Amino acid sequence: MTVADQARLLADIRAGFDIPPGKVYLDGNSLGPLHGSVKAHVLAVVGEQWGTDLIAGWNTHQWIDLPVVVGDQLAPLLGAQPGEVLCCDNLSINLFKALAAALEINAPRRRIVTEATHFPTDNYIADGLARLLGPNRCYVDALSLEQIAQLDFSDVAVLSLSHVDFKTGERRDLPSLTAQAQSAGALVVWDLAHSAGVMNPGLNDHHVDMAVGCTYKFLNGGPGSPGFLYVAPRHQYATNAIPGWMGHADRFAFESAYRPAKGMGRFLTGTQSVIAMAAASAALALFDGISVDTLRQRSLQLSDAFIAALAAHPATRDLACLTPLQHEQRGSQVSLRLSDGFPISQALIARDIIVDFREPDIVRFGFAPLFNLESDIDRAVSALADILASRVYTEPQFRTRTTVT
Amino acid sequence: MTVADQARLLADIRAGFDIPPGKVYLDGNSLGPLHGSVKAHVLAVVGEQWGTDLIAGWNTHQWIDLPVVVGDQLAPLLGAQPGEVLCCDNLSINLFKALAAALEINAPRRRIVTEATHFPTDNYIADGLARLLGPNRCYVDALSLEQIAQLDFSDVAVLSLSHVDFKTGERRDLPSLTAQAQSAGALVVWDLAHSAGVMNPGLNDHHVDMAVGCTYKFLNGGPGSPGFLYVAPRHQYATNAIPGWMGHADRFAFESAYRPAKGMGRFLTGTQSVIAMAAASAALALFDGISVDTLRQRSLQLSDAFIAALAAHPATRDLACLTPLQHEQRGSQVSLRLSDGFPISQALIARDIIVDFREPDIVRFGFAPLFNLESDIDRAVSALADILASRVYTEPQFRTRTTVT
Repeated sequence: MTVADQARLLADIRAGFDIPPGKVYLDGNSLGPLHGSVKAHVLAVVGEQWGTDLIAGWNTHQWIDLPVVVGDQLAPLLGAQPGEVLCCDNLSINLFKALAAALEINAPRRRIVTEATHFPTDNYIADGLARLLGPNRCYVDALSLEQIAQLDFSDVAVLSLSHVDFKTGERRDLPSLTAQAQSAGALVVWDLAHSAGVMNPGLNDHHVDMAVGCTYKFLNGGPGSPGFLYVAPRHQYATNAIPGWMGHADRFAFESAYRPAKGMGRFLTGTQSVIAMAAASAALALFDGISVDTLRQRSLQLSDAFIAALAAHPATRDLACLTPLQHEQRGSQVSLRLSDGFPISQALIARDIIVDFREPDIVRFGFAPLFNLESDIDRAVSALADILASRVYTEPQFRTRTTVT
Repeated sequence: MTVADQARLLADIRAGFDIPPGKVYLDGNSLGPLHGSVKAHVLAVVGEQWGTDLIAGWNTHQWIDLPVVVGDQLAPLLGAQPGEVLCCDNLSINLFKALAAALEINAPRRRIVTEATHFPTDNYIADGLARLLGPNRCYVDALSLEQIAQLDFSDVAVLSLSHVDFKTGERRDLPSLTAQAQSAGALVVWDLAHSAGVMNPGLNDHHVDMAVGCTYKFLNGGPGSPGFLYVAPRHQYATNAIPGWMGHADRFAFESAYRPAKGMGRFLTGTQSVIAMAAASAALALFDGISVDTLRQRSLQLSDAFIAALAAHPATRDLACLTPLQHEQRGSQVSLRLSDGFPISQALIARDIIVDFREPDIVRFGFAPLFNLESDIDRAVSALADILASRVYTEPQFRTRTTVT
C-alpha cells in the first residue's frame, strides 16, 4: 500500500470514531474512544449471538477461541506471529503468569529486577509473587534505569520493564536492554501497555522472551478491556502458575488431571467475557491494512507538531517537557511538568481539551494515530497558552486522582 | 411481599427475556439467556457512558467501583452482607486467590482436600497452587464425598467443594460439611457456580469462610461474564496472592510499595471490563425484590414437575435419574443417564428443546426460576418421550463436547 493509501485508510477509520463533537481527545493513551464498528459488533454479539443462539454460540460463533483469535489479531501489531499472543484476563494477572513462568525457566536464579518507577501494578505483582514464593525462590530489586544500564545480570532471573513510561512518555531502548539482560542469561518481560498500537515493539526481531499489555488504551477496546500475554515459542513449554480448564489440552473431556494444552493455549485460565473480547476484536479489526510503521510515523508527526506548537507560543515555549525530544526515546504522549498541573488539566478539560493529570505535577497529552489530527493540536496548544497567560484556572469542585492509566 | 406479589414480579421479569420464539431453554444452568434490560444497559454503557463521557466515565459512572457495587448486588443472593463479595476476574482466578489466602491463614497446615469429581478447573487450580508452592507448603488430596464425610480434618488447611455438582445436579449439605471441617480447624471454600441465583447458600448463617462462583449461569450475566469471590470479614486481613493496583489502598497515588486496601477490596487485582461488569450488574438488578426463598421454591416446583412428568410417561418413567429426589439434595437441574445421551440431546435440540450433554452419557435439564414455565417442561418431556419411543435420533454432523458449563 502506498503512503497515500495508508493516509486514506486512516481517514476512513477516523471518520468512524464516535468522539463527541467539539471535543479534542488527547487521552487515547489512557482510554481509547468508541468506534462505530465496535458499538455495532457489541450489539450484534449481545443481541444476535447471545440473544438468539444462546449456548450454541460457544460453537457457532467460536466464542471459545476468542482469546486465541484476538491474540492472533494483536500479533502483527507487536511484531509477533500467530500462536504467540493470547488476549485474556488483565495485564496484572498476565504479568503474574509471565514472571512465574520466567522464574521456572530460569531456576535456580531467583532475582527479579524491575524499574523503581515502573507502573505500580507491575511492581506490586512482582512483590506479591516474591511474597508468595518466599525468599528462597524469589526476591525483587527495584532499580533506577541508570542502575539497570550498569547491571551485571548474571544472577538475574528476569528483568521486568515498561516499553514506554506511563508518566514521562519516554520510550526505552527495548532491543538493547533485552540483549544486555539476555547476554547474561536473564529473561525479559516487557509491559507494552503504552506502546501497543502506536509503534512496533518488534518482539520476534528483538528476541523478546515475554510481554504483557492491555487493549483499552491505543487499541480502543473499551474501558477495562482484556489484557494480553506474549510468550516466545521457545518458552511455551513453561508452566502456567494459574492453570484453569481453558488451558487444558482437552477442555470438554473434563479430565480430573490437568494436561496443559500444547503451545500458547496453556496460559489460559478461566472463561473470558465474550462481550469484552468481542469489543476488543472489533477494535483490533480497525488496524487491518495499517502498517505499524504508518502508525509510528503518524504518532511522531503528531507529537512533533505538538512540541513545535508549544515552542512557537510565548506562553508555552518554556514549559518543562518530561518527554524526550529524540524520536527513538519518545512514546506516543507528551508529558509536561506544570506546577499548577491539576487545575490546568481541569481548565483544559473544561474547554473540551481532554487530557489527564498524574501526581504530583504532570499533565499528559496523548497522540493516537487512528483519530488525532493537527487541528486537535492547534486547539490544545492555543487553549493551554490561553490558560497559562490568563492564570485563571477553573477551580475544581473536588480533587480527584482518578482515570485508569 | 406476598406470594402473589412475588409471582407477579417473576412474570414481569420473564416477559423481558429475549428467548427466541418456539425455543424451550433448559440450559440456564450453563448460560443464562439475554434479558432486554441487559441489552439496553450494555448499549447505554457502550454508546453513552464510554462513547460520550470517555475517560471521565471512570468517575462520573463509578466504573472504578463496579467490582464492589456488583459484589454488593450479589451479596443478598448468597446470604452475605455488603463488603463481603467482589465481582471480578473469573471463577478459576478467584479460587486461586481464595485457596492461597486459606493456606496463609491456616499455616502451617498444608493439605488441600477437594472432591475427586469436583468441577475440573477447581482441582486444576488447587493442583497448580500446590505445584507453585511446593510440597513443603501445599499438597492436594482429591477424595470421594464418602471419604470426605469420614475425614479427620485435623491436618487439613482447606476443604474445596462444589455446592451443586455440575454433572449430577446433587446439592451438597453445605452447613454440615462446613461445620465438620471447621470443627477440626479447616477452612472451607465453596464453589457456588451452580447454586447462585437459584437457592440461598447462606454464607453468613453457616459461617462459610470463602466462596467463589460465576455470573453467567443462573445469574444471566452473559457468556463468560465475571466471577465472584466471597471472603468472610474475619479473613479479610489475608494476603491477596495476586496483588494488583486495583487492590491498593490508594490506587491513584501510584505508590511504589503495595499497601492493601482495607477489607474485601484488597482481593482485587487488575482492571475489569466495564462492559462485562455492566452486563452482570443489569442482570443482577433483575433479582431486586425477589427473595431467595421464592427462587428456591420456584426451582423445586419446576424440577418436581419435570420429575413427575417423566414418571407419568411410559417412555420416560424408567430413565435413570442421577439427581436426588429429596429436595434438600437437589440443585436446580435434573441429570438423566441415557446410553444414547449424545444423539438424544441433539434430537432434543433439533426440536428446539435446548439442553446439554456431559460425557459420557449425561443429559442435563436446567430449571431457571426467572424464566422457565411448566409449559417448557411439558414440551421437553413430550419431546423426550417421542424421541425415545421412536428410537430415531438425529444423527449429528459432528460430535462436539462444547458448551461452557
